[in-house]
Order: sequence, then structure tokens, then C-alpha cells
Amino acid sequence: MKDMRSISFKKGKLFYLDQTKLPLVEKWQECSSIAQGYRIIKLLKIRGAPLIGVFAAYCLAVSAEKFAAKKDLFLKQATYAISHLKASRPTAVNLFWALDRMQAVLTNNPDKDTDSLKKLLLKQAALIHSEDVALCKNMGRFGVSLIRPGDRILTHCNTGFLATSGNGTALSVIYEANKKYKDIEVFIDETRPLLQGARLTAWELCRKKVPCRLITDNMSAYCMQQGLIDKVFLGADRITANGDVANKIGTYSVAVLAKYHKIPFYVVAPFSSFDLNLNSPGSLPIEQRNPDEIRKVFNRVYIAPRNVKSYNPAFDVTPGELITAIVTDKGIIYPPFNKNIPKILEK
Amino acid sequence: MKDMRSISFKKGKLFYLDQTKLPLVEKWQECSSIAQGYRIIKLLKIRGAPLIGVFAAYCLAVSAEKFAAKKDLFLKQATYAISHLKASRPTAVNLFWALDRMQAVLTNNPDKDTDSLKKLLLKQAALIHSEDVALCKNMGRFGVSLIRPGDRILTHCNTGFLATSGNGTALSVIYEANKKYKDIEVFIDETRPLLQGARLTAWELCRKKVPCRLITDNMSAYCMQQGLIDKVFLGADRITANGDVANKIGTYSVAVLAKYHKIPFYVVAPFSSFDLNLNSPGSLPIEQRNPDEIRKVFNRVYIAPRNVKSYNPAFDVTPGELITAIVTDKGIIYPPFNKNIPKILEK
Repeated sequence: MKDMRSISFKKGKLFYLDQTKLPLVEKWQECSSIAQGYRIIKLLKIRGAPLIGVFAAYCLAVSAEKFAAKKDLFLKQATYAISHLKASRPTAVNLFWALDRMQAVLTNNPDKDTDSLKKLLLKQAALIHSEDVALCKNMGRFGVSLIRPGDRILTHCNTGFLATSGNGTALSVIYEANKKYKDIEVFIDETRPLLQGARLTAWELCRKKVPCRLITDNMSAYCMQQGLIDKVFLGADRITANGDVANKIGTYSVAVLAKYHKIPFYVVAPFSSFDLNLNSPGSLPIEQRNPDEIRKVFNRVYIAPRNVKSYNPAFDVTPGELITAIVTDKGIIYPPFNKNIPKILEK
Repeated sequence: MKDMRSISFKKGKLFYLDQTKLPLVEKWQECSSIAQGYRIIKLLKIRGAPLIGVFAAYCLAVSAEKFAAKKDLFLKQATYAISHLKASRPTAVNLFWALDRMQAVLTNNPDKDTDSLKKLLLKQAALIHSEDVALCKNMGRFGVSLIRPGDRILTHCNTGFLATSGNGTALSVIYEANKKYKDIEVFIDETRPLLQGARLTAWELCRKKVPCRLITDNMSAYCMQQGLIDKVFLGADRITANGDVANKIGTYSVAVLAKYHKIPFYVVAPFSSFDLNLNSPGSLPIEQRNPDEIRKVFNRVYIAPRNVKSYNPAFDVTPGELITAIVTDKGIIYPPFNKNIPKILEK
């Protein structure tokens, strides 16, 4: 199971790579209950919006094996399980979307017995999984057309096989480019406070043998000034109807710096990240996380006085006007986004 | 000695606060030899350009007590000591400047005996020290005129009483402002890789009871976007004749972001930081430091794969056109810098 995946489903068992232990320890663990799944998602052992959705769906399917045989009790347990899993990461839109599909399996098959429902749940989870793999592949294929031989690409946070159940979003593009041109190079923002760039992206790119260099978040401007960056590729948590992008803190900073240095800034995300009901930056909620994440590294080493006040917005919003194009699984969307986003998504 | 100072000279003995142990441990140590002084500067136990100069001067003066009584041998030992101390941090301009003044004491007093020379060296070190304290005071006084009640100020790296032998450069302005207006607030960039903001500035501001909040370097753009920052104040390592500023990595990033958000960007530095022989950004050398500083925190905790390549420029250069004004000990310099820098410095 030590290949390049974040989760694995084999012979009815669900395994996951504990991402909180990376990059120094690679620990695969089994998940066989809703209580375990809840903790795994909550503690960020599994993270990345698309991956959480796939993982939660499988978690429900494997846990259902132990639910009651009596149908009304089975349905009660399944409904409770779904709502409990949803509470593990209340802002993760893919989690809701995947679990709603699992719920629909139960709702849409009133005549089936519990054994059939278990099989259908497993089938649905596998479908969500294979769809995610296909989405990643498509984003990679569309995105690679934006890359030229020798490009040096800046990325932020983690958007690869640790964030999805496929090859990733922005990193899927980079993996495709690395197959096509052997001379690309990736600059990785370490992505404080939780260091997803240093811990996860650096680990992935080393594992996939993609030439890369790790930098601190405050070095990207200098690298741009020195002509070391040709393009920026990164992911998105949510995208509004006018192309405003909520993503990991620091994304907005990179976008402003790229604009100033006239460097193309590309966002890569599947259709499920779009929320066409939202149409202003203010409508995107910004999660404020524990201030100790700023005062510490790895949630254990203090790097600042214990009593200093800190501020920890987990996301920021990049206005659409700073974005060169959005790469989706259905094609590349260029501005004006308010016109072109609906056009592509309706394909 | 636990007051707000970085070094202390008392009854012929030199003490320093070990900055590599901050913020969790406050350890005062004695320095009584050139070999110790060399290591203390090299290992960054004492850092900050003005402080290094004062510390090296005192280090020479206290070490001279143990030099030979015979004058020609005394002079040989002193000359070796000066060149050895200079080698501890070859890019620190104040180190050279202070030690050249100590050398001049020896050169300009050919008729004095060794006992008199020892006294003159000590007197010169004390003079360099008191001049530094006065410079800090003046920068604070001039700079505070730029601050309004309620200002929220972003700062980067450490420029306070841990970086000078007085109250600091940019932080001297902030300390003055905090005395004058009780409602200012400081946002501190943690300043990766060596975390001078999180470790040193946060410690200083907490100690001096200045309201402050620690953020990661990638959050300043978000804070600016949200209207949380009114002004930027930070220091400089070197300034060219046309106002280009070499300073801690990340300074250029903050300058571009401030420009984009129309936020005034002030640099605070004493006259000794200017080098009027330099007049282009390219003429400022950028020190590349050990890549392990990026892969680790505190030089011991790995945060990235051990084998990932990294890139570690210690400084960057901010072009004068991004700078609103430069606060010096002789007054505030506004653009055009190529005209106004010589005018003020010749005062």
C-alpha cells in the first residue's frame, strides 16, 4: 500500500495514510467505524476537500456492515452516521455533497433490504471515488496546455494525491507537465501555519521525482522579482459565480504579487468547488482557527511567547480580477468569469 | 540585569542576553574573550547590525585587559583580534565600522602605553554605545510624527532593543508611539525562516506591554485587504544612494503588498546603514544561507522531507519607488531619494 495514494479500499477494508505524521513517518491505518472516521477527518489525518468526500463515503459504506439487520434500525443508524460525519468538518463542501449522495441511495431505494442497501452504499462510494480520479485526470489534461517546456511554477498548500483520491487538482496539472516535459521546476511555498507545502507537497513531489525547491512564504515575491517564476498554479476551496476564490491563507498574497510581476495566476478546481449562489467575496465565510497554530509548529514546538496574542484566519479570498484563468475538469475558464463560469459548467 | 536591554556592561564585565534561547528561556551570559565574542556573533546569539557593532567594540575592550603588557605584542594581539571579530559576520557593515573606530584609537595614539590604550579602547566602546542609544532615540522622535492615534502598524523581523544597544530602529518609533498614544496596535510578521518576529519582536512587545498580534508572513496581504493595517514600519540592513533597501527576506513582499493596498511603507535606519557608493539594487549582495534553515524550525525540528531541495536567500532588495519615506536619526527623508538622501545625511 506504499504507492502514491492517500486512501486504499481493498477486500472490504478502508485504509488511509495519516497525513499528520508526514513527512517523517508514513503510517497506514485502517478505518472501520463512524467514530474513527469522525476523528480522522476532524484531526486532519485526512484532509483536502475532494479526499474528505471520498473517504467519508467509504467510511459510511464499511461501517454499515456493522449496522443492525432490521431495516428501520439500519436506516436510523445510517442517518445518524451521516449527520455525525458531516459535523467533523462543517465547512467542507465536498463532505456534504458526497454524504448527500450516500443519503440519496437510502432514500431512493425504499424497497431494498439492508443487505442490498449495503451493497448499493459500497457501489456509490466506489463511484464517487472513480469520479474523483477522473476529475483529477481531466484537470491535469486541460491544465497542461497552459505549460511550456522549462516553466518554473509556484504552488501553495497541497493539492495533490494527498488532497484528492486521484492525482490532485493543481498538482495533477504539474504531474502531467512533468510527464510531458522533463525540465519543469516547481517552487513550493511552505504554507504556514500548518505547513502543508513543506510537509505534504514537498513529500509528494519528491516521491514523484518532480524537480522542486521549497521556500518560505515570504520568499515568493523575491523569486518573482528575480525572474525565477513563470506561472502560478494552485487550488481552491470554493469559487463564486464571479470567479472569487476562497483558498488557503496566503493565496491572496501570491495573487497580488503575481499581478504586480505580470505572472499568470491559475486556479485549478473541479466543478464541485463552484457555488453559483455566492457572488461576492464577503459571502464566503472565513474560518478562524486556534491561535496556538501560529504560536507553535507541529502543534507542539513553541516558536513565540506563550502569552502573545495571535490571529489565525485559515483562508482568504482572491478576487476574480487577479486570476488569469480557472482550470476545471470541464475545460479552462477565462474572464469575464460571471459570463464564462456558467457557460462551461453547464456543458 | 533582567531589564529591557540586549547587552550590559558593568564593573568592567560584558554580559549579553542569548537571543538563540528566546523567547522561552532568558539566559544572560558573560563574554570575556575574543574567541567567545567571535562565536557569539557567528552563532547569532547576538544579532542586529547596530548591536553587533557595539558588542564587538566592548568585546575587544574587555579582552584587551588580558593582552600582553609589552606594547608591540599588545598591538599585534589587538590587530589580530579586530580582524578575527570582523570575520564573524562578513556582511555586517556596522561590525566593520565599529571595529575600524577601535583600530583608529590604536593608530592615533602612538605615544600612549598599553594601560592608557586599554582605557581609551573602553572609552571608545562606551562612546559607540552611547551614540547608538542616542541614534535610536532620535529615530523614535522623528518617526513618531508619522503615527496617528489608533494606528495599526505592521512590522517585519526584529528591530528593537534586541537589535540595537538602545531602543531599536523601527521599534523605537513604535515604543515612542505607544508612550504617546495608548491605542496603537502592532501586527508582527513571524519572519521565517529564523522567526525573528515570533521569537524576538513578540517577546519584546509583550515585555514592553505594546498591544500586538502575531501573524504568519502569508497573512499580511489578507490583513491589508481587510483594512486592518494603516502603516508599515520596518528596518534596513543597507540603503543605496537612490533609496533601494536591502533588508530581511520578506521585506520586498510587504512593500509590494503595501503599494497595492495604498498603505504607507516606512523604513527606519540610522545614517550608518546608508552606502552612497551603491546606486543600484544589483549592487547589493544577497547572502544565501544554509538550506536546512528552510527544512527545519529552530535548527532542530524537521518540517519537510530531509532530501527536498530548498532555497534560502537571507535578504531581499526593495526598490526606492515602493518606499514612502525613510526615517533616520537626522530626520525623515522623502522621495526623490537620490536628491534628498545626500541632503539630509550631510546635515
